[in-house]
Amino acid sequence: MSLKQIGEFGFIKKISRGCLIRPDNIVKAIGDDAAAFQTDPEQLTLMTTDLLVERIHFLCGTISGFDLGHKALAVNLSDIAAMGGTAREAFVSIAIPDNCQLDYLDGIYDGIKNLAAEFDVNVLGGDTTRSKIDLIINIVVQGIVAEAELLCRDAARPADVIFSTGFLGDSKAGLHLILNQIPADTEGLKSLLTAHRVPQPHLREGRFLARQTGVHAAIDTSDGLSSDLGHIAEESRVGARLYADEIPISQNLKDFCARFNFDPVDYALSGGEDYTLLCTVSPDRAAEIANAFEQKFRRPLFAVGEITEGKKITLVYPDGRTKPITPTGWDHFKVEKNE
Amino acid sequence: MSLKQIGEFGFIKKISRGCLIRPDNIVKAIGDDAAAFQTDPEQLTLMTTDLLVERIHFLCGTISGFDLGHKALAVNLSDIAAMGGTAREAFVSIAIPDNCQLDYLDGIYDGIKNLAAEFDVNVLGGDTTRSKIDLIINIVVQGIVAEAELLCRDAARPADVIFSTGFLGDSKAGLHLILNQIPADTEGLKSLLTAHRVPQPHLREGRFLARQTGVHAAIDTSDGLSSDLGHIAEESRVGARLYADEIPISQNLKDFCARFNFDPVDYALSGGEDYTLLCTVSPDRAAEIANAFEQKFRRPLFAVGEITEGKKITLVYPDGRTKPITPTGWDHFKVEKNE
Repeated sequence: MSLKQIGEFGFIKKISRGCLIRPDNIVKAIGDDAAAFQTDPEQLTLMTTDLLVERIHFLCGTISGFDLGHKALAVNLSDIAAMGGTAREAFVSIAIPDNCQLDYLDGIYDGIKNLAAEFDVNVLGGDTTRSKIDLIINIVVQGIVAEAELLCRDAARPADVIFSTGFLGDSKAGLHLILNQIPADTEGLKSLLTAHRVPQPHLREGRFLARQTGVHAAIDTSDGLSSDLGHIAEESRVGARLYADEIPISQNLKDFCARFNFDPVDYALSGGEDYTLLCTVSPDRAAEIANAFEQKFRRPLFAVGEITEGKKITLVYPDGRTKPITPTGWDHFKVEKNE
Repeated sequence: MSLKQIGEFGFIKKISRGCLIRPDNIVKAIGDDAAAFQTDPEQLTLMTTDLLVERIHFLCGTISGFDLGHKALAVNLSDIAAMGGTAREAFVSIAIPDNCQLDYLDGIYDGIKNLAAEFDVNVLGGDTTRSKIDLIINIVVQGIVAEAELLCRDAARPADVIFSTGFLGDSKAGLHLILNQIPADTEGLKSLLTAHRVPQPHLREGRFLARQTGVHAAIDTSDGLSSDLGHIAEESRVGARLYADEIPISQNLKDFCARFNFDPVDYALSGGEDYTLLCTVSPDRAAEIANAFEQKFRRPLFAVGEITEGKKITLVYPDGRTKPITPTGWDHFKVEKNE
């Protein structure tokens, strides 16, 4: 049996056995956006970590140090956001190949510290070491959340309305430009590149959702809408119905898809790294929460479908046709990617 | 200015600027074995992280997956031990090259989980991803300690007795055997290999020391006695005197040095990765604590010297000759190492 055969999620299931030997005070272990455990009677500690490897997740020649540092932290902050938490402390491990320039490294730390400061996060420690070839960055973020406000993947209920806190598919379009060395010759294409390189963690949106009654499950869109909704469906033992014409597609992505002949809905479904939040909301609270969100953030909370009984995820087109959705997002051990 | 010129510790100082933007409740940031911050009125949270990279820290061909997993966790537990803490939760990030066998990976996780279970630590999360060439493991350990029991590098006082919780130099001798492909043809040489490959974190010893009054500063011997004592001296703004004939050298290391013509004291001073604890103890408490340690652990707490005024570290030979000590331990950006 090889790693490619069992895939990333098969591997995680395999190694998870026997990991939890002291279950007291552990609220979430492996299997959500972050681990959650009780350290204080008043609140939970959240912990998440992401490892970025050169030539797998990025190419130094195509991203500035600043943007790389920003992104390395942003993906972790997004996991804290998906749990409804407040990010507090970050720890940065870096392994540096000999040919890496000090200026580039300074850029990485500037990008990290700039984003950390925006969200009141300390960079409190880490590890610095050498690498033979590839630059490697591992960031860990610790956060906090009141137990009653914790958002998890496993709490979706049939009839819940599914929302996204932002547009989907932009990041994948930015990656397409980079991988195919297509110059970003319009403001629209530049925005797609920015969406891929400098994603904004939805921490404020996550805190807003966590404080509302009626918000049940949440996840961040790191693997792609179909995969991430698949995680919610699997963990909550439910299905879902998505409406093709309600999936939020930015004008930039529409223009990109028209120009390069892609289907924007496919892009939104399969594209990862958008780092919006998906959440499921009790139907009697959905309209009020969407209104309050729009009032607060001056942009819509996009309803994309609803949770159903069963296990299937179905895409419904405006003319009534339906298509079964199978997760098409990210599995590190099955596919290749490079920025 | 290159990374080689400023060195690991110069680089850390450079990147540390502007990292702490919310100092409330932060007890230790960058610069000790672990970060320490208040999350609960009763206790501090400790966090430490270590990044291990193939061909820098290990060669897969010379260490089993099990031993590699053990060591990757042990070095983190040792940092928690050096702060006087109890380790609680571990997070494992791994980047896996395509040619890595599933059996080897299973071994790594077995080694991690086996050591975690011994110290009642959960493996609570992490990240799994691909790597182009090198296997990469980053582990983060969260721990706890009562604020009054926290041990730091900066609390040594002149006249304190300096102790080590175990022998020094064995790990470096084990590394020498591996790097020079010398077969471990005696039980003694096998023990030196084991000291290098499967170090035992001194968590119980750290907790014992943390509970005693009169124990001032502590650090783990990851970089080598001279470097690690140098860290205590620098952070505490003191000097130290070491007695050459009191430095704890195992019989195995004596035999090794006799056979391969090395000076055992040099080995103990410059050899890293022993993962004993160095601590400094008020002179009026030293004898009592050493006795209690020996009673509890059935092996000595080795007095190796004392803290002095000033900034110098001096080695004193039995005949009264003295030699100034400059840190000769580990700097990742200045030297090369491979297992």
